[in-house]
Amino acid sequence: MLSWEQVFATRASRMKASEIRELLKLLERPDIISFAGGIPDPALFPKDAFAQAYAEVLSGPDAAAGLQYSVSEGYPPLREWLVGQLAKLAIPCTIDNVFIVSGSQQGLDYLGKLFLSPKDTALVTRPTYLGALQAFNAYEPTYDELNLGGNRTPDAYRATAAQAGGRVKFAYLSADFANPTGETLDRAGREKLLYLAAELDIPVIEDAAYQSLRYEGEAIPPIMALDIARCGDIDASRTIYCGSFSKTLAPGLRVGFIVAAAPIIRKLVLMKQAADLHSSTINQMAIAHVAGGIFDAQVAKIRAVYRERRDAMLDALARHMPEGVRWTHPEGGMFIWITLPAGMNGAALLARAIETEKVAFVPGQAFHADGGGANTLRVSFSCADPATIAEGISRLGRVISLERLAA
Amino acid sequence: MLSWEQVFATRASRMKASEIRELLKLLERPDIISFAGGIPDPALFPKDAFAQAYAEVLSGPDAAAGLQYSVSEGYPPLREWLVGQLAKLAIPCTIDNVFIVSGSQQGLDYLGKLFLSPKDTALVTRPTYLGALQAFNAYEPTYDELNLGGNRTPDAYRATAAQAGGRVKFAYLSADFANPTGETLDRAGREKLLYLAAELDIPVIEDAAYQSLRYEGEAIPPIMALDIARCGDIDASRTIYCGSFSKTLAPGLRVGFIVAAAPIIRKLVLMKQAADLHSSTINQMAIAHVAGGIFDAQVAKIRAVYRERRDAMLDALARHMPEGVRWTHPEGGMFIWITLPAGMNGAALLARAIETEKVAFVPGQAFHADGGGANTLRVSFSCADPATIAEGISRLGRVISLERLAA
Repeated sequence: MLSWEQVFATRASRMKASEIRELLKLLERPDIISFAGGIPDPALFPKDAFAQAYAEVLSGPDAAAGLQYSVSEGYPPLREWLVGQLAKLAIPCTIDNVFIVSGSQQGLDYLGKLFLSPKDTALVTRPTYLGALQAFNAYEPTYDELNLGGNRTPDAYRATAAQAGGRVKFAYLSADFANPTGETLDRAGREKLLYLAAELDIPVIEDAAYQSLRYEGEAIPPIMALDIARCGDIDASRTIYCGSFSKTLAPGLRVGFIVAAAPIIRKLVLMKQAADLHSSTINQMAIAHVAGGIFDAQVAKIRAVYRERRDAMLDALARHMPEGVRWTHPEGGMFIWITLPAGMNGAALLARAIETEKVAFVPGQAFHADGGGANTLRVSFSCADPATIAEGISRLGRVISLERLAA
Repeated sequence: MLSWEQVFATRASRMKASEIRELLKLLERPDIISFAGGIPDPALFPKDAFAQAYAEVLSGPDAAAGLQYSVSEGYPPLREWLVGQLAKLAIPCTIDNVFIVSGSQQGLDYLGKLFLSPKDTALVTRPTYLGALQAFNAYEPTYDELNLGGNRTPDAYRATAAQAGGRVKFAYLSADFANPTGETLDRAGREKLLYLAAELDIPVIEDAAYQSLRYEGEAIPPIMALDIARCGDIDASRTIYCGSFSKTLAPGLRVGFIVAAAPIIRKLVLMKQAADLHSSTINQMAIAHVAGGIFDAQVAKIRAVYRERRDAMLDALARHMPEGVRWTHPEGGMFIWITLPAGMNGAALLARAIETEKVAFVPGQAFHADGGGANTLRVSFSCADPATIAEGISRLGRVISLERLAA
């Protein structure tokens, strides 16, 4: 029998199972109240609109085209629609700046592939999106903390990267209602990031997966909009914007997009041609139909539902968390980030929480490139109604209180 | 403005545009007879069956599941159906051996990612599938010729790889009606390959994209079937089998599959989780519906049409090719491989052919990892009716005859 280990690439040793994906299985046990997933509520999917979209594509003149191979760039009418949406966000562009990917997770994989050689450094926030770490890991980088609060100098970033054996290749972050913290980077922070990126001469990867899901306060311009306002032209911009239809319309079609300077899009198109040819033709057509028809109404509908759930969770946290526990107040998205008193351990708490109180969440350590964050938790409010949220958070409060007493 | 070149990974320098993809644009000019594409005839797509499948999924109890995130392994009922099909090919397996990818091109990308570190060697036939070279190139390998005709020893392969700075990681080939040659490896060749792979202790990647499209002669067992017959168990097999629905049902859904020993499937699942989470849920359901309903009838239908076109092309080649030109006699698939007299150049011929005779094909050089094959051409018979094929090949004969006289 073949000794597989000796034929694996060195990167294979960094491929590990995701705690979150394993936890998703818990959602299927009806006795568990799970705040672990980060997925949209399937009851909110516009399934009639999708049924109509597929029926129209497959009964119309584009039926054969929808089932055929298509260009790696993506379906032009969908890219045209996105150009219109991006204009509303102060991102002026043409379809040559828009590239369709199979979900924005694929966008992260491609960007890791484009920029990272082994030992290069990716700057990520602490905590950051676990899926980004997983995507980048395949290209064997090192990570350094993107810390916009302190006074770390560009030279300090450069020196750390050189010590690791490479150079800083990009900064990655989610600016709006980030997964996992729910926090939003303010305008000053965005400007500071662009200044740092210019000093380091690196691109900024802006993950905008939750950008449409704002429940309060005023929208802050995307980092890319601030960058273009500064440099005058998207083709001179250093920001790469990753968007998704997974949180607004539906994730099961795997349609996301990247917006960037045209030379970068051309590189990504070549990469996609080699990696999977193109994203599903018919799904891009279906998304174009549904987005063109009902996007704003759908976003308004899910915002109202998720806002109510966020409020219910914030309210329950205030009522049920013992002293010493802190949490974020997200203005949008799907997540709240809980910090337990130092010394407590989220993974141990989860085991206890499932066993004694039948409530689940994600321990925060997985979101830390450096393995820290043992006393943090991520809870999602996207998939439970307000009463269930109240009950689940009260259970979580009990298990945290008991665990503290035991400690 | 950012100097992008300095932030690209080293692999980015190997990402180049595909000649074939550029040529596909010619298909849109109605005055050109193009044999350049390698795509299925869209008139043969079972579009009514797909319309019904999407309608059933989206009006039934699985509607929300079809639009939601799903497991990275792939839709279980589709994998179950594949287990049944594979049993007919003497590949006994369970769904733990079957993994759904977004087209078999993605399978090749993932296998390159799993096995190849920079400077490792991939063994490929000469010529080989251009898309495989493009997928593997991202992982910066070197190539060595997989030559099953000669008497090259395992030690010779090892020495060449060591000289290039790495080791042999796998052998890749298409055993049935290969793209680009249309040729099929006979049973003795398959056994010889398995012997070589065992000596080198490497996996064999069997690209079975065209396997269902046989027009004459008796099917030869897949390499994987011979391997399992020898070692007794798929989980002890060194063969990794890549299949596709693109040539039988439709490519636009991007649904393909990999069959392998369970430990390899588990690694690939982790890779997919990090790279794009999963293939489109609804498309996997639609393929499962259509395959379960009409797969055999659909394959019988397209075989009859493509067989007639292959016959028309072989007939026209015999009538119109000047002396000194040779071509393959494929028993299936979509391609015939033409070898011009030494000294002639396929790329120069293409420019002349488009200009003077309005006929297109793919010059063979792109299919050679070593840049050879300048005097070869690939023609596809999949998308033209017999009369057009006769006319196009007669034009091709004229331009080759004139080019020879001019040389």
